[in-house]
Amino acid sequence: MNDEKLNVIGLKQSFVDAREKVSGSAKYLDDMEFPGLLIGKILRSPHPHARILSIDTSAAEALPGVKAVITAKDCPKNKFGMEIADVDMLAVDKVRYVGDEVAAVAAETDEIAREALKLIKVEYELLPVVDDPIKAMEKDSPLVHEEKGTNIAREYHIQRGDIEADFASCDYVFEKEFSTHRVSGLYLEPFGAVAQWEANGRLTVWTGLQSAFQGRNEIAKALGIKPTQVTVKAPFIGGGFGAKIWIRNFHPIAAVLAKKTGRPVKILLTRDEEQLTTRPRIAPRMKVKLGMMKDGTMVCKQMTIIADNGAYSWAAPKVLLNLSMRTDCLYRYKSSKCDSYLVYTNLIPTSGFRGYGNSQSHFAVESFIDECCRKIGLDPVEVRLKNCVHKGDVTLHRWNVKSCELSECIRIAAEKIKEGRLPKEDQNGRIKRGIGVACMTHVSGNRGGDKFDGSGAMIRIHEDGEVFIFSGESDMGQGAKTVFAQIASEKLGVPISDITIMPLDTDVCPFGMGTYSSRVTTVGGRAVLMACEKVLDQVLSLAAQMSKRQRDTMYMESGLIKCSRDPSILFTLKEVATKAIRSRAGVPLTAYVTYDPPTEGSDKDFYGDYSSAYSYGAHGVEVEVDTYTGKVKVLRVIAVHDVGKVVNEFGINGQITGGVAQGIGWCLYENMLFKKGYPATNGLHGYTFMTIKDMPAVEGIKIESNDPIGPYGAKGVGEPTLIPTAPAIANAIEDACGVRIRDLPITPEKLYWALHPQDK
Amino acid sequence: MNDEKLNVIGLKQSFVDAREKVSGSAKYLDDMEFPGLLIGKILRSPHPHARILSIDTSAAEALPGVKAVITAKDCPKNKFGMEIADVDMLAVDKVRYVGDEVAAVAAETDEIAREALKLIKVEYELLPVVDDPIKAMEKDSPLVHEEKGTNIAREYHIQRGDIEADFASCDYVFEKEFSTHRVSGLYLEPFGAVAQWEANGRLTVWTGLQSAFQGRNEIAKALGIKPTQVTVKAPFIGGGFGAKIWIRNFHPIAAVLAKKTGRPVKILLTRDEEQLTTRPRIAPRMKVKLGMMKDGTMVCKQMTIIADNGAYSWAAPKVLLNLSMRTDCLYRYKSSKCDSYLVYTNLIPTSGFRGYGNSQSHFAVESFIDECCRKIGLDPVEVRLKNCVHKGDVTLHRWNVKSCELSECIRIAAEKIKEGRLPKEDQNGRIKRGIGVACMTHVSGNRGGDKFDGSGAMIRIHEDGEVFIFSGESDMGQGAKTVFAQIASEKLGVPISDITIMPLDTDVCPFGMGTYSSRVTTVGGRAVLMACEKVLDQVLSLAAQMSKRQRDTMYMESGLIKCSRDPSILFTLKEVATKAIRSRAGVPLTAYVTYDPPTEGSDKDFYGDYSSAYSYGAHGVEVEVDTYTGKVKVLRVIAVHDVGKVVNEFGINGQITGGVAQGIGWCLYENMLFKKGYPATNGLHGYTFMTIKDMPAVEGIKIESNDPIGPYGAKGVGEPTLIPTAPAIANAIEDACGVRIRDLPITPEKLYWALHPQDK
Repeated sequence: MNDEKLNVIGLKQSFVDAREKVSGSAKYLDDMEFPGLLIGKILRSPHPHARILSIDTSAAEALPGVKAVITAKDCPKNKFGMEIADVDMLAVDKVRYVGDEVAAVAAETDEIAREALKLIKVEYELLPVVDDPIKAMEKDSPLVHEEKGTNIAREYHIQRGDIEADFASCDYVFEKEFSTHRVSGLYLEPFGAVAQWEANGRLTVWTGLQSAFQGRNEIAKALGIKPTQVTVKAPFIGGGFGAKIWIRNFHPIAAVLAKKTGRPVKILLTRDEEQLTTRPRIAPRMKVKLGMMKDGTMVCKQMTIIADNGAYSWAAPKVLLNLSMRTDCLYRYKSSKCDSYLVYTNLIPTSGFRGYGNSQSHFAVESFIDECCRKIGLDPVEVRLKNCVHKGDVTLHRWNVKSCELSECIRIAAEKIKEGRLPKEDQNGRIKRGIGVACMTHVSGNRGGDKFDGSGAMIRIHEDGEVFIFSGESDMGQGAKTVFAQIASEKLGVPISDITIMPLDTDVCPFGMGTYSSRVTTVGGRAVLMACEKVLDQVLSLAAQMSKRQRDTMYMESGLIKCSRDPSILFTLKEVATKAIRSRAGVPLTAYVTYDPPTEGSDKDFYGDYSSAYSYGAHGVEVEVDTYTGKVKVLRVIAVHDVGKVVNEFGINGQITGGVAQGIGWCLYENMLFKKGYPATNGLHGYTFMTIKDMPAVEGIKIESNDPIGPYGAKGVGEPTLIPTAPAIANAIEDACGVRIRDLPITPEKLYWALHPQDK
Repeated sequence: MNDEKLNVIGLKQSFVDAREKVSGSAKYLDDMEFPGLLIGKILRSPHPHARILSIDTSAAEALPGVKAVITAKDCPKNKFGMEIADVDMLAVDKVRYVGDEVAAVAAETDEIAREALKLIKVEYELLPVVDDPIKAMEKDSPLVHEEKGTNIAREYHIQRGDIEADFASCDYVFEKEFSTHRVSGLYLEPFGAVAQWEANGRLTVWTGLQSAFQGRNEIAKALGIKPTQVTVKAPFIGGGFGAKIWIRNFHPIAAVLAKKTGRPVKILLTRDEEQLTTRPRIAPRMKVKLGMMKDGTMVCKQMTIIADNGAYSWAAPKVLLNLSMRTDCLYRYKSSKCDSYLVYTNLIPTSGFRGYGNSQSHFAVESFIDECCRKIGLDPVEVRLKNCVHKGDVTLHRWNVKSCELSECIRIAAEKIKEGRLPKEDQNGRIKRGIGVACMTHVSGNRGGDKFDGSGAMIRIHEDGEVFIFSGESDMGQGAKTVFAQIASEKLGVPISDITIMPLDTDVCPFGMGTYSSRVTTVGGRAVLMACEKVLDQVLSLAAQMSKRQRDTMYMESGLIKCSRDPSILFTLKEVATKAIRSRAGVPLTAYVTYDPPTEGSDKDFYGDYSSAYSYGAHGVEVEVDTYTGKVKVLRVIAVHDVGKVVNEFGINGQITGGVAQGIGWCLYENMLFKKGYPATNGLHGYTFMTIKDMPAVEGIKIESNDPIGPYGAKGVGEPTLIPTAPAIANAIEDACGVRIRDLPITPEKLYWALHPQDK
């Protein structure tokens, strides 16, 4: 495949929906109009942990313009959730975090709905707040979910090799604790949904889910109906970053309100509600133990993780699994061990966020390697190069490394960040500068357990030669539609302008798992490619029939169908398509495929090759530290990524810039803080985040390792661009001022106290 | 196939959409709501033929609430039409019939739009009116379309065998002229459309077309854009009877108004507009010449047809072709000849209507056979039985008769109508009663020329076992959705309630030609059956894989998947579907097929087998004639139809009752009259039609000939039920009172003067 001369793959291709987006004509959920639309609003718990003694909705119901007021008693009693069904759509008996859904209204206007919420009277009995995961694990801790008998939502104990013996054999054994924190996705478009029941008993939900099909199933589960009674349709989506993979409570709530009123109901979260109830990263404490030899050989690694899950589990069990394992596959360890615990607290529920746990563990391990190397006087870059995985390796957890330019990424990042670096000191030592490097590995798809990781694609060539592509994968803004169009354009030889990516609609589009695990290009794109190949075979067969030639002499070149035996034969795709659609040949010029990558999933011990490709990358970072204030400024980032193959250079550049920015924000600025369970940083006014002024120069470098499985050799790059940013910054800070910060975020305050412990 | 034990095919199956229809929750076009919807209205010509000197729209444009006023100068200049592109969406330079589209407005309300129409000032110069097709054929006639240089829109000259020699050899040669008239479809739901442009430049049109795909292409042609830039979506459709096969001018007009205003625009015809501009039957004068032997052998037949086409051609050229040929295939003639002319006049344009020309020629020929037999003292029923076609025949035009119970139909109709007939006279001879029989043949699909007559179907089995069927064929109320669901239910062993027929949407549904030529069950249904077979093969392969058995030992029985070698193996469809949708087996449980019947189409002389099955039927009718008033009352109808195989007995019964009613209405009541080109019977107040009080007892008898090609042996029955009604009534009238009426409708006035010529 990689010998093909490529015309479209690798270009700087403007996004196919760019014109709609920049002109403002793209319809996001809130731009859509529905006749008779009611506005739904949710009354949320003001307390982190409380028993509901009574709810009086009578005043709200009496307010003119209010069409429905619902509480748990009006809702189906089906607990739902991603891995663990621990969620009620409206609180039953008690609330578990500030923001928990208690009641909901549907009204003629937003104003009336807000007014109605104020009229609902809820009596609470406050309960002791569980806000520390370590204390929450103690036997006598109050329970977040009494019926479970414990606050431990999930635990993993994973070991490979003889870790005791290996540690015993090491020249050095280091151990330290790291921790990371909750941050918000801060996607431009708040999450929301419009629910409408059809006359035939079917429910349509318009919502910008990253996983439309899994969302459809979960909405059905919450409502106690069949999945196919629900249609999920995706408008344009303004970002998700993981927080929109799964449904939220408002999805089934909107459906219940729509059912009760017989009208469409829209619930669109306000920015404050988003901050209160978004799905941030899970916040782990990670004890890391590393065994090394004098020559820099990294022998073995052990982690103990206690992760604060918040009140409900969502994707957190899977995130914790990634946290527990993936960094083991970055280097050639002999053995590894991890004991990890996911613990319920009365804080905001956590879930997946760009990196899906991998960011947290990379921060810990990639920071710690630097720290250890410094201690024993080795160059951390050299140590990385000495130990990192290579193509052909099978890692500790049985990842089959079929393409890998990790060492090249590390080498280039290290070299480039050294080139032209600024003086180490300035202003008489007030400003100190340093450089740091960190690397990463990530998946391009994820066969969880024995489950499916595939994607369907349907391609239809219409009689005017226009190509319609149907996929079950979401484009939340990352450019999936453009990648799919490029793949089809390349394979079928038709211009991008003749290709339409059809809107995502679960009734129509083939089943797809959704946009997560950086899988859309690799898995969804491969499905599109296969559908193109299948339909191209139909095209060539028909062209052979039309020209009375052998099928095997027909081929496509630059969008024209030719015959190797007769240069006079020449068809355009449109000519064949026009013929085909009205043909007795039974060729519909429609191809439908399901592609499931050739991976095996993992066994009950999580041992197994579960992604068809693994991405690698390294970031080199230069920072300056104002030692008087503790303020860190990131000056430059060299982001080197083994992307397999560049499909859309514009798209990858966007991912790199965005991933770096989000990584810096996570590392230096953002933090969702709580005091005794009450949020202390709610709303954008109370939440520090990065702005364009803080953005460093980013140089993105793409290494093409030509993966044998990905379409045209491509691998996922969406999440990887974030992952090594934070540890590279932490390493650069230590290089600059000799201080190691092990708990994120690295705020000026924290760094100041570390630089000036005597001032405390 | 016919040996299968059938569980669902043949049942009396309630229509799958019956609940929605009877509860009023089904959404017809006018029930749909669109935010920002504007109402479009069309200014129509008050004159049958006039030059447009000027149009002043300024006053209309100035009316508050008017958002757009358009005339031809605002529209793309692309003539369109079905067979002949002779239509402009708004009149250019001149108008050609009363109702012709001159200008259009879009306004905030219906009232404002109507008011705006009144403010548009059009100056006309009246032109001589062409209202008699015979005069219109004369050399010096004014021309309806000057650029054509003639009023003859189309002519056919078709001959088989040595007709001169055959007539010379006959014992008798008879010749008479018959004529039929324009009638309105009078479907319950007036025709209309909503047009809306999407931000990405695509146009969506919601409209109840019988042929959504052909409509899509024609709208695109009128607008000068690509077919796939247009999406046609069908709401529920309240009847069509042929008049909704093709688009009307209002379709592109709505699109132009929507483009100009940037808002969705609805044009819904009023009942008066429908009567003024519907597409009635073409009105032919048919000279029939019949050659017979003394023993009743029908030797040869010649027709000369001059058909009034009206101002624009639409489907009339195809209708005339059917008129010219199809009755030749009812009997074993040695030779036949037809010369036919379609002539433009300044009357309402004609087109296809249930029977599609076949009704008109059957009226002439089936009436004339009776008349000739009476003259030579033969029993017309015996003569029909002696001459009619049988299974295995190849007719004069090369129709390959693969299933045919015509003689059985004739025999039963004749017998049953005799049984229990009332006295021949009553009230001292004032009331006279008679019986008559007529038969018919019709197609079940139609490969016109070398074109496609196929249909696609896509079936998708979701993970919860629900079956979604996508077809490009319309259900205009005839019950296609139910037939498709029955076929899938039978083949896949799932209950009807688990099957959803998806809404017709040209972006999503496979290409289909549409609902005409009684082809939907035969062609569309067969495509559904094949898609079921294909998906069933996927199901059985997967079940074999799941149970580790050979594929060829797996089969489905009563909805369960079994293994012939191991009775312990038993899967439900849902079990397999759940597994399949998340499977690496690459089986999507989605099948997409295109079926094109094994017919050859016809050559340039229209010789060829162009339907995979031919339907046959005979109606026996008893009438009473009030000889004092000329009023005819139909007492009983025995409708015997070779339907191939009953799929849904409810559906067929509905078709029979409806076809008979519409046949009686055409024969006795309805008539669109014109005076010098001006309509004389406009609106329902001025148009006589049949009501429930005039409805006779109808006994429908279904004969199953088990067609070898149709799905489960079924053939089309939609149009056939109308066709023999009118000639059977005419024959019964002659039997009752000795008077032969050769021009429809048989009004009391007409019959009175025939009974009492001396009173004239």
